[in-house]
Amino acid sequence: MKNLVNRELPEAIAAIGTLAPYAGAFAQTPAMQRYAPKVKRQLPGSRKLRDGLEAVFDELPITDGMTLSFHHHFRNGDSLVNQVLEIAARRGLKGLRIALSSVFPVHAPMVEHFRNGTVVYLDTDYMSGPVATAVSQGVLANPVMLRSHGGRARAIECGDLRVDVAFIAAPTADEYGNLNGTEGPTACGSLGYAFPDAEYADRVVAVTDTLVPYPLKAISIPQTRVDYVVTLPSVGDPKGIVSGTTQVTKDPVQLKIASLAAKVIEASGLLKNGFSFQTGAGGASLAVAHYLRKIMRERSIVGSFALGGITGYLVSMLEEGLFERLIDVQGFDLEAVRSLKENPNHLEVSAGMYASPFNSGCVVNQLDCVVLGATEMDTRFNVNVVTGSNGYIMGGSGGHSDAAAGAKLTIVTANLIRGRLPILRDEIVTITTPGETVDVLVTEYGIAVNPLRQDLIERLSGRGLPLKTIEEMKRLAEDIAGVPEPIALTDDVVAVVEYRDGTIIDVVYKPATK
Amino acid sequence: MKNLVNRELPEAIAAIGTLAPYAGAFAQTPAMQRYAPKVKRQLPGSRKLRDGLEAVFDELPITDGMTLSFHHHFRNGDSLVNQVLEIAARRGLKGLRIALSSVFPVHAPMVEHFRNGTVVYLDTDYMSGPVATAVSQGVLANPVMLRSHGGRARAIECGDLRVDVAFIAAPTADEYGNLNGTEGPTACGSLGYAFPDAEYADRVVAVTDTLVPYPLKAISIPQTRVDYVVTLPSVGDPKGIVSGTTQVTKDPVQLKIASLAAKVIEASGLLKNGFSFQTGAGGASLAVAHYLRKIMRERSIVGSFALGGITGYLVSMLEEGLFERLIDVQGFDLEAVRSLKENPNHLEVSAGMYASPFNSGCVVNQLDCVVLGATEMDTRFNVNVVTGSNGYIMGGSGGHSDAAAGAKLTIVTANLIRGRLPILRDEIVTITTPGETVDVLVTEYGIAVNPLRQDLIERLSGRGLPLKTIEEMKRLAEDIAGVPEPIALTDDVVAVVEYRDGTIIDVVYKPATK
Repeated sequence: MKNLVNRELPEAIAAIGTLAPYAGAFAQTPAMQRYAPKVKRQLPGSRKLRDGLEAVFDELPITDGMTLSFHHHFRNGDSLVNQVLEIAARRGLKGLRIALSSVFPVHAPMVEHFRNGTVVYLDTDYMSGPVATAVSQGVLANPVMLRSHGGRARAIECGDLRVDVAFIAAPTADEYGNLNGTEGPTACGSLGYAFPDAEYADRVVAVTDTLVPYPLKAISIPQTRVDYVVTLPSVGDPKGIVSGTTQVTKDPVQLKIASLAAKVIEASGLLKNGFSFQTGAGGASLAVAHYLRKIMRERSIVGSFALGGITGYLVSMLEEGLFERLIDVQGFDLEAVRSLKENPNHLEVSAGMYASPFNSGCVVNQLDCVVLGATEMDTRFNVNVVTGSNGYIMGGSGGHSDAAAGAKLTIVTANLIRGRLPILRDEIVTITTPGETVDVLVTEYGIAVNPLRQDLIERLSGRGLPLKTIEEMKRLAEDIAGVPEPIALTDDVVAVVEYRDGTIIDVVYKPATK
Repeated sequence: MKNLVNRELPEAIAAIGTLAPYAGAFAQTPAMQRYAPKVKRQLPGSRKLRDGLEAVFDELPITDGMTLSFHHHFRNGDSLVNQVLEIAARRGLKGLRIALSSVFPVHAPMVEHFRNGTVVYLDTDYMSGPVATAVSQGVLANPVMLRSHGGRARAIECGDLRVDVAFIAAPTADEYGNLNGTEGPTACGSLGYAFPDAEYADRVVAVTDTLVPYPLKAISIPQTRVDYVVTLPSVGDPKGIVSGTTQVTKDPVQLKIASLAAKVIEASGLLKNGFSFQTGAGGASLAVAHYLRKIMRERSIVGSFALGGITGYLVSMLEEGLFERLIDVQGFDLEAVRSLKENPNHLEVSAGMYASPFNSGCVVNQLDCVVLGATEMDTRFNVNVVTGSNGYIMGGSGGHSDAAAGAKLTIVTANLIRGRLPILRDEIVTITTPGETVDVLVTEYGIAVNPLRQDLIERLSGRGLPLKTIEEMKRLAEDIAGVPEPIALTDDVVAVVEYRDGTIIDVVYKPATK
């Protein structure tokens, strides 16, 4: 069967079930009830502290085939996933399903657990490093389920992703299971991605290195949802939170793109008091914030909120008074961690409140503008952020398709030529984010506006902006870099790309060459 | 059928269903899933603001027989319930079921809605004033369901109380439905009792008089659970929050009782660093806090938390450093409202976190000591706080049976003789709180310890405390005041008293005389 973006999909995948084809960004009307987890009980006098993870494995017990969930706020400094899976492997457990909101290079030991059958299924929103490579090479028994951050929250709340045991790495906890991420030596900031797991998992295990007297003051996840508390010497390395640069780029091409993007935002009419904004943590994304900051200062504009993964750059804009609030589902650096702890205008939100399409309204719905990246784009503005030019998985939606769907203005910034290859193609390897939710592509060679947004084309015209059609941009790229050879792929599906509403927007095939 | 406290119960009540008999304070092991409400959706660009309550009635629509829920944080200053029911009556709606967490004299207009059939059922935790009198007189078509505060949260979470439309009076809101009770001219403090309604109702309507720009800073109830926002000139009168005195009593008999209660707490061994405490808002309850404060000062004891409905007296103990935290499910005066807004050690909690027996652990489970009142008690320490000596309903459990079950030491303080009648009886009119969860009765004539607590009897002995058996206390009371005549009751059940776990501990009969 084919979906609305013309991707051929299998009818079903054994480990997942039948696949519903993507039918449009807002085509699904939910007609279900929320998942109803077990009602639990704790008697007065009962204690939740357990002597190590092994004791929890024994007591629950954790058995073959269970779904264990984890959150990724420690990013490449995470240590809990590896510890839990090492115990599982040592105990000879098989067939585990792992729901980890994002996978980083630090999770490399998982590859061995794929090989020996300890882990047979992975549900995640993003993956990079050895695990992503191994998945692309077909090492895992079943295709990976790749969701968006909002889609993961929806999947948990709607019962598509049922978690037997949620493990929550909590930088600070009390003995009765009140948790936060802002205090203690391994503070990681927001615990937003762990909220749905805590709320809906059948059993919840909090792991902490900093136990404080009851009751914890700043409670992010409450005792009412936590069944066990385990202390370990360290729950993660906060230095690993910072992935790559979190400084404004110095690359002149990226600065040019960022400057153009800021001009598009200014010309859109959205940049006025109450403006709301999301961007990523990379140097090119921060450069857009940098140019916006200049305009906001010059024109004395105060924005309402900046959203998303939060960086020190956005913190400094909050502290300067350029935004009223930061809304934070994960910290991208230690400045974000500090600010969330100290500043009452810096709000922690759950993944569901951040971006789930199926509740009474998520924050991305209130976004004026989001600036996003792309590894590839086609002339219908469909975006790939899952696979690289070699066909290997090297990312995932994260909040990409969520923010694109919610924002009034979705801008993709990208070098038109990257690694000597055009990013604009007739057919992209994988569709992550549907073109109907992407409004503008900004490159070093010009700006293309989605023809669905005639209102925006009118607004941007006559302002000296280098507007081009997407086809013109593609020809320009091909004139410079040629038409790239299509990647050779096998018929083996290694990942399923779910759109935020639970339909399938694409599948990822194993590349033919290593 | 009879339950464990020997009360004869009907097998079923038409408007409620079959009744499960009370079988012990911790006899029920939950074997169900949580209630699964409708999954909802809000598209980007959709707005939640509606032009008045009538517009919401039209749009939902609200129809005959629906269950509408309300919270009672404005106490006797509430105005929302009356406004909603007036609209319902004007529209000719019939058969509504009202789930209002507590009923006060201000709700008197509800009686007329009982008479004309607009309202046929009431689910509440406490009632006083004309509504309580009318219920006792049999004006309402069906028996009232009287729950505890924790039991109400459990009932909503477990699906026993299913709410079609929850109305939330929110002192401050933004247009997308983020709510709090701490800001704005009608700030009422904690919104704790409204949390379960917001989480599980099929539709949620927020009503506010103070709309602030998106996003609200201090979010108590999030946009993800609120479907409509309506503005009214005022959502309530905060002066009505203060019910009766919130000053330490000057009555010498009550001061004597309070002093004895404080000595019991000191002798129990619980009064040390980390001590946790709950008491009510009345002058006699505050007097216990007053004597405890002296001891805590003298002995340099720092308690961990005070819990419950919060008064200015407890706020002053927090500010003095005698407790580390206040945990607040409702404010009993405007000092509590101010403190919750200003002091990060003053925590707002949901009704479920406060006291539900069926989650992964509520705060009452962590209580060292609670001091409670009683209108009557029997020699098995069963307590009545529902009906007065004339058999009329004049209260309800509220958090009484919850805190009694959770605390390590549950003390009931009461005048042994009140209104010339002994409070100790062979048979009390209504059992609210089972004697197995009550440890000590303190009166002006002495102290009786529940024989189930031999450990406590040993601790309190030899310290010069006026210990008596409960039978001795009863004889003493009868020597002074005589044996009261039993109240004449009809066979008509006007209320069902549910224990916090969902079983039925008693029913209330209509008195034979007006």
